[in-house]
Amino acid sequence: MEIGLIGLGKMGYNLALNLSDHGHTVVGTDVGNVTSDAFSIVPTLEDVVNKLSTPRVIWTMVPAGDVTEAVLAELYERLEPGDIVIDGGNSNYKLSVARAEQFAEKEIKFFDCGTSGGTDGARNGACTMVGGDAEAWPTIEPIFKDLSVENGYLYTGPAGSGHFLKMIHNGIEYGMMQAIAEGFDILEKSPFDYDYEKVARVWNHGSVVRSWLMELTENAFKKDAKLDEIRGVMHSSGEGKWTIETALDLQAAAPVIALSLMMRYRSLEDDTFSGKVVAALRNEFGGHAVVKK
Amino acid sequence: MEIGLIGLGKMGYNLALNLSDHGHTVVGTDVGNVTSDAFSIVPTLEDVVNKLSTPRVIWTMVPAGDVTEAVLAELYERLEPGDIVIDGGNSNYKLSVARAEQFAEKEIKFFDCGTSGGTDGARNGACTMVGGDAEAWPTIEPIFKDLSVENGYLYTGPAGSGHFLKMIHNGIEYGMMQAIAEGFDILEKSPFDYDYEKVARVWNHGSVVRSWLMELTENAFKKDAKLDEIRGVMHSSGEGKWTIETALDLQAAAPVIALSLMMRYRSLEDDTFSGKVVAALRNEFGGHAVVKK
Repeated sequence: MEIGLIGLGKMGYNLALNLSDHGHTVVGTDVGNVTSDAFSIVPTLEDVVNKLSTPRVIWTMVPAGDVTEAVLAELYERLEPGDIVIDGGNSNYKLSVARAEQFAEKEIKFFDCGTSGGTDGARNGACTMVGGDAEAWPTIEPIFKDLSVENGYLYTGPAGSGHFLKMIHNGIEYGMMQAIAEGFDILEKSPFDYDYEKVARVWNHGSVVRSWLMELTENAFKKDAKLDEIRGVMHSSGEGKWTIETALDLQAAAPVIALSLMMRYRSLEDDTFSGKVVAALRNEFGGHAVVKK
Repeated sequence: MEIGLIGLGKMGYNLALNLSDHGHTVVGTDVGNVTSDAFSIVPTLEDVVNKLSTPRVIWTMVPAGDVTEAVLAELYERLEPGDIVIDGGNSNYKLSVARAEQFAEKEIKFFDCGTSGGTDGARNGACTMVGGDAEAWPTIEPIFKDLSVENGYLYTGPAGSGHFLKMIHNGIEYGMMQAIAEGFDILEKSPFDYDYEKVARVWNHGSVVRSWLMELTENAFKKDAKLDEIRGVMHSSGEGKWTIETALDLQAAAPVIALSLMMRYRSLEDDTFSGKVVAALRNEFGGHAVVKK
């Protein structure tokens, strides 16, 4: 199948290689200076559109937000009825619902695909969750069958449901990571002297908490036994926040995922204003000493 | 090796079969009426002690708390210098530290073993974390090598460190389970109509959250697509509570594991007194309607 690929970053480039391996003809473009022997790269999005036979299938793999917005807006102008657009980035599901409606006005089918498994997954077999038009799904299903691991793709329902499911996946991921992290934090403060790489390894063999995240934990401790080389600054890329915003909209109690997110925010601050307020209040009512700057 | 096994419940019985498969001679006893063709069962703990050659190796696999206390007290009376006791239950690590000191007075070696992987693990390959005397460890290591999955056992250090590590394992388990549960709760309240078995399955193939717990989630939804047959009552058996008590003692911030535990407590109540207090206060200051009994 011919596939246009907009965005050849870490994820897009590896997806292009993966698709090429499976015999698909990829025509890619990127704002950066990217080259490949495995697939065709053209200078602009317009070139991608012109080079593909109709009906076109175009996958966008660019950062969620303004960049995705701009790319999809240009695609909306350039594409024709019958074409198919797949947003493989981490867009907010509400935008994907709206975009599908917009594209439908021009009879263009819009799919939202949540892609999990990192760059290695993109290259060697991802996990994909795809929402969009049920009738058009069989046309593009072979793409997902090929680029995902076996049983690693799912048609999730109408537009928005793919990105929604990926959002929840990431929310669960936040909670699982924070639970693992808190466990090791208690070990680090314990009276015992554990080898964390060995702990993660034994937990990966037969225990209830065995998981890919625990395997990554093992890898991390193998490289740096006490993680001395890094600071505990935990950034986030939006999907955890959307999960909690969605939980609030739906009045779903999700305290663990919410706190996982807030512990990330806390990690970005060396000191906190809330800490100052509590310290000041303890001083006010009880004369408890404050730590001066 | 000859091994005495006190307690032939779900875990102990399967461990006895597992050890017998590996050529060990098991002499077991249980308060219940248990039979087996695979290993020898005698009426009392005293019979186990009398039947084993010295130095004895005796594994206790009985409920933590009073039962373990009683069994270990009797073993302390009946055993002799050089014997080895392994507590394979979920005892509090502080008790295990104290017991090792007590047994050492009689020159009996005490090991605390955290056992993970459930009954299937006990039968076919567990994950074991063992604390205790470093010099005596090589004597019993073959037992753990045999009954655990490959790479699934770890000598964790001095007495107490095995149960401590198992406690933290369970704390992490609480957090991971609650994160998974909250994710599916949001899906259930979402505008989309997901097939949860298929969701769990796709997440088990290539995604970041793939894990044994997600496989169990898949199994559960396969049996009962919406879990209509069960109530969301979440009991706990003590180790999550100990994890948080330990976090408090060590001044470790573990909010996600703490909330996982408290959400379990919440699940045990149909109504809450805290809910009544908040409802009453909203009524007091704002005239907001309360729900009458």
